[in-house]
Amino acid sequence: MSVQSFTFQVKTKGFSDTHNITTKVQEFLSRSKLAIGIAAVFVPGSTASITTIEYESGAIEDLKKAIECLAPQNIHYDHDARWGDGNGFAHVRAALLGPSLSIPFKEGELQLGTWQQIVLIDFDNRPRNREVLVQIVGE
Amino acid sequence: MSVQSFTFQVKTKGFSDTHNITTKVQEFLSRSKLAIGIAAVFVPGSTASITTIEYESGAIEDLKKAIECLAPQNIHYDHDARWGDGNGFAHVRAALLGPSLSIPFKEGELQLGTWQQIVLIDFDNRPRNREVLVQIVGE
Amino acid sequence: MSVQSFTFQVKTKGFSDTHNITTKVQEFLSRSKLAIGIAAVFVPGSTASITTIEYESGAIEDLKKAIECLAPQNIHYDHDARWGDGNGFAHVRAALLGPSLSIPFKEGELQLGTWQQIVLIDFDNRPRNREVLVQIVGE
Repeated sequence: MSVQSFTFQVKTKGFSDTHNITTKVQEFLSRSKLAIGIAAVFVPGSTASITTIEYESGAIEDLKKAIECLAPQNIHYDHDARWGDGNGFAHVRAALLGPSLSIPFKEGELQLGTWQQIVLIDFDNRPRNREVLVQIVGE
Repeated sequence: MSVQSFTFQVKTKGFSDTHNITTKVQEFLSRSKLAIGIAAVFVPGSTASITTIEYESGAIEDLKKAIECLAPQNIHYDHDARWGDGNGFAHVRAALLGPSLSIPFKEGELQLGTWQQIVLIDFDNRPRNREVLVQIVGE
Repeated sequence: MSVQSFTFQVKTKGFSDTHNITTKVQEFLSRSKLAIGIAAVFVPGSTASITTIEYESGAIEDLKKAIECLAPQNIHYDHDARWGDGNGFAHVRAALLGPSLSIPFKEGELQLGTWQQIVLIDFDNRPRNREVLVQIVGE
């Protein structure tokens, strides 16, 4: 049993910009040489989330619309009134979707569905350089 | 420390069909003989989710209604326009609720609340034979 | 590699009462003497959730409002009709946000963003004495 820790950067545009990070996570898993265990994918920050979806432009667009209904950009946010950040909607969205995901792996392969990809969604109101952590526990 | 990996199948009807999988997960935990650690429950696929709820028909019905509001079945989805699958709502729902759950266990028992059950919710628009993974890390 | 298990109590007021539990989780991580791994934070119970947010009163208030839209307190719930608990909204909210969070740590430190705090949100309709579990796997 061991733990291995990896980090990578993703340049995002904000406003629910969605990136497929599956290949990157699998690449680090392969580099770890671990065969079986759990890969925890985590985004440090309070305005981005990690989840899975079929990564095709239709489904991504549909998800963005649903998130816009969940916490619309153009309503009042107390966060903005207090701090003038203008990204109150991003904080709410990120809290609802969450920053973490745990994925089992076997024989060195992430056990995702055929059409299931790991995505980073950046909800902030400006471009960001995001760090993503992949913490792998296994043997 | 070791990792043990289990898989089981659940026949679902789709359309937010919700299954109590707690007994199954506990059964695999007992079989693992591990006393303390983390059990990661994961559904491969982009149209189903894992969460916890009090498994009684009222609460399940209430959750289904809330999910119907979150991503209604009968609105336009770009995914459907592109691929003709008719399950755009299912992709959005699954991305919002997420495919994974990590549950601590001690003395070989899942540390759930008294009324808290682990559920698989299948959002797809047809019956499916779902695979659920239980990856157990502990000692 | 080892697993260490910690528990603490939080007195809550219910109705989306939100508590910053970051310091407590980091304190247990320090006590574990583990340097690298995954900390799983989990709330046993079907009417509370764990997530992360920038813990300042504006963002907390914004999140509460979004959750009130997601599963309003004053609509009909089948759970209440059957059991008379009056907390149907709490069950739905908890199922949507989820009870678990997995956070990577390195050099004995939780790898959270600068403004990202771990919070317990109690959705129940009365004060509760909540137990929170911190299960730490690492080396």
